[in-house]
Amino acid sequence: MSDKTKLSIIKIGGNVIDDPLALSSFLKDFSKIPGFKILVHGGGKEATRLAGKLGVETIMVEGRRVTNEEMLDVAVMTYAGLCNKKIVAQLQDYDTQAIGLTGADGNSIRSEKRKLGRYNYGFVGDVVEVNSEWIKRLLDTEAVPVFCAITHDKKGQLLNTNADTIAQSLAVGLTALFDVSLTYCFEKKGVLSDSNDDNSVLENLNFNLYEKLKSENIIHSGMLPKLENCFQALREGVKEIRIANPEILANPKALHTHVSLY
Amino acid sequence: MSDKTKLSIIKIGGNVIDDPLALSSFLKDFSKIPGFKILVHGGGKEATRLAGKLGVETIMVEGRRVTNEEMLDVAVMTYAGLCNKKIVAQLQDYDTQAIGLTGADGNSIRSEKRKLGRYNYGFVGDVVEVNSEWIKRLLDTEAVPVFCAITHDKKGQLLNTNADTIAQSLAVGLTALFDVSLTYCFEKKGVLSDSNDDNSVLENLNFNLYEKLKSENIIHSGMLPKLENCFQALREGVKEIRIANPEILANPKALHTHVSLY
Repeated sequence: MSDKTKLSIIKIGGNVIDDPLALSSFLKDFSKIPGFKILVHGGGKEATRLAGKLGVETIMVEGRRVTNEEMLDVAVMTYAGLCNKKIVAQLQDYDTQAIGLTGADGNSIRSEKRKLGRYNYGFVGDVVEVNSEWIKRLLDTEAVPVFCAITHDKKGQLLNTNADTIAQSLAVGLTALFDVSLTYCFEKKGVLSDSNDDNSVLENLNFNLYEKLKSENIIHSGMLPKLENCFQALREGVKEIRIANPEILANPKALHTHVSLY
Repeated sequence: MSDKTKLSIIKIGGNVIDDPLALSSFLKDFSKIPGFKILVHGGGKEATRLAGKLGVETIMVEGRRVTNEEMLDVAVMTYAGLCNKKIVAQLQDYDTQAIGLTGADGNSIRSEKRKLGRYNYGFVGDVVEVNSEWIKRLLDTEAVPVFCAITHDKKGQLLNTNADTIAQSLAVGLTALFDVSLTYCFEKKGVLSDSNDDNSVLENLNFNLYEKLKSENIIHSGMLPKLENCFQALREGVKEIRIANPEILANPKALHTHVSLY
């Protein structure tokens, strides 16, 4: 048994953000989680909508958004501005002492601009360092950090960073100070063994089973990098990882995938 | 002599925000202020620019912007998003532990939607309460709060609030815990006795002199509510108020207006 305090990190994706009723219900459940907690949110469709209205072209390379300077401004306005502050205001209504953050705030997440490889993704940041000591001090003020998908390079440049990566980096970065439980909430109930059957949830997924199901092509495409990140986070000390529907917050016994190394 | 710790609150206006070189120079000087400090910034022309691009009509009533729902979104995106996060990232580059805030973050500034009077200003908030205890705890983490001109009503609604008012409310709210010095930076060197002569700065302006110059119409228009707010803040315990050009930060002996009650 560890004598460290428990910290719950919850990541929600765009589909919850885009649905005001689902978001409100999620935030109400989130506000009831006891103890130290952090919320990480994606941006939803707001950025694409705003980019469209402003005539900023969305360029995708191998399924990933290229972030030129105009698109970065759009991301900062929607993720750090509109989405983040609306979530914070709503959580405050639910008596949660929420505080919205980018990685620039408090230098909480420093990243570096992705090096030019086969493609130039523009202002995209890969996480270098989490300022876990300061985040702990912030948590000790009873604040509940709400992170959006923006980081910085500590040289004045804001950068766009995937929200899943932010959740994972925070989880790993804070393992030295807390027993971290990380929950990825998305539209399904968990990792499915049959993508046509929403109830075919793999309740316990360890690394051996993952490797087997991957070789059989039962787990594939977008779920592969997500799970690789999960196993890496577990190797780096994260105590618990769940992949679940947002309903897990209100009902921890709801069907979900528990990811473990062994 | 007071045994309270000194806190410097600096407010900068839109003209500095709109000029990248002036902003960068200002932030460099701000980063060198020793001890506890808070920055409050206006929004500059970014909101008007974005509103124009999005076809959101700017409606002015008696010189004040009406904030309908679309204009509030624009204000949140530009003030809390783009302006605030760019300032925070730049201050971090200057090794200042900046953290960007709206009044919703940490419930730091609660306001109420302005009651319908002669005009309906829409989503405009008048400050009700500053969460000075929590702001002090945040300052104790060595964070440097950077406030934009957005507050909330603690019932989930974000509201637009004048940046001068935010600076004054923070100054008054924090007097119980700190010796507060409040500096309003703007394009002039101070309050002028002759609006055609930029060097005609009134170096010491107490309430009696202010009343005299007001009756003689030497101080007029926009400076009146600003100064009324200053005198009110002094009555409520703020230790020092300066109206100055941003150069005051690098050179405290630069010509400026020192506002006092007596």
